[in-house]
Amino acid sequence: MKRLSRIMMSVVLVAGIAGIAYAQFSKPADAIKYRKAAMFLIGQHFGPMGAVVKGKQAYDQKEFLRHALLVQSLSTMTWNAFLVPGSDTGDTRLKASALKNQAGFLKAAQDFEDQAKKLVEAAQGGELQAIRGRFGSTAQTCGGCHKPFRS
Amino acid sequence: MKRLSRIMMSVVLVAGIAGIAYAQFSKPADAIKYRKAAMFLIGQHFGPMGAVVKGKQAYDQKEFLRHALLVQSLSTMTWNAFLVPGSDTGDTRLKASALKNQAGFLKAAQDFEDQAKKLVEAAQGGELQAIRGRFGSTAQTCGGCHKPFRS
Repeated sequence: MKRLSRIMMSVVLVAGIAGIAYAQFSKPADAIKYRKAAMFLIGQHFGPMGAVVKGKQAYDQKEFLRHALLVQSLSTMTWNAFLVPGSDTGDTRLKASALKNQAGFLKAAQDFEDQAKKLVEAAQGGELQAIRGRFGSTAQTCGGCHKPFRS
Repeated sequence: MKRLSRIMMSVVLVAGIAGIAYAQFSKPADAIKYRKAAMFLIGQHFGPMGAVVKGKQAYDQKEFLRHALLVQSLSTMTWNAFLVPGSDTGDTRLKASALKNQAGFLKAAQDFEDQAKKLVEAAQGGELQAIRGRFGSTAQTCGGCHKPFRS
């Protein structure tokens, strides 16, 4: 009985957390607008780091770190925005596969979050060769989500 | 002569930094898109904190801190996006006053950045009464920029 009530409590808790996340987006279009803004900004701050890593832009530690911190912070976005029912149609490139394989999607998002954190650590260290490696690993996690879940 | 060349170097440096910031936005519309995305996300993460502060939403420290960190990180956005010549017309509410009083605009942006950092510290502390105070101070800095520079 005690075990059952503990399981029930977990179910209620999880449902509650999901509820909070979904409540932010009352319509699929709201979720799409949110994630497009976040992804757009990630691109805007990933790009300048890429230019530095490729040697097309001079390396400025403070500015690079600012970009890395913004990407890292945005990697903690409300990923459930991608799992809102019905948000795989409309002004979006999200594949239905994300809604079907939610655990897989969230795992890919977590990989990005983990790598973005390591990129920040490298950017704080300031050693360009280490940064290059971490930047590459982070870029790979972009593909790890875009390939299976974005058309 | 030495002093003059040092001044000249500063001028070149500042011009260089401004150049980097502007280079991110080759057209005024690009700058507008960037800042709209950032402001939209700030609103999306400020709102849930407001609901907690007002007692409309249960307080969850980890989730509150995530919102606070996202807002703080976004407060370090490329503010020069608001100073791109010609970006006070089109799909924007930016007043021409921002382009005329750039120092005033950047000061208001810095105030927001400073308060958002303090809000994160309060959120890390986790004491709701302290959080309420810091949230209020941060919200004030929103108005400190919107009132003079947004129509």
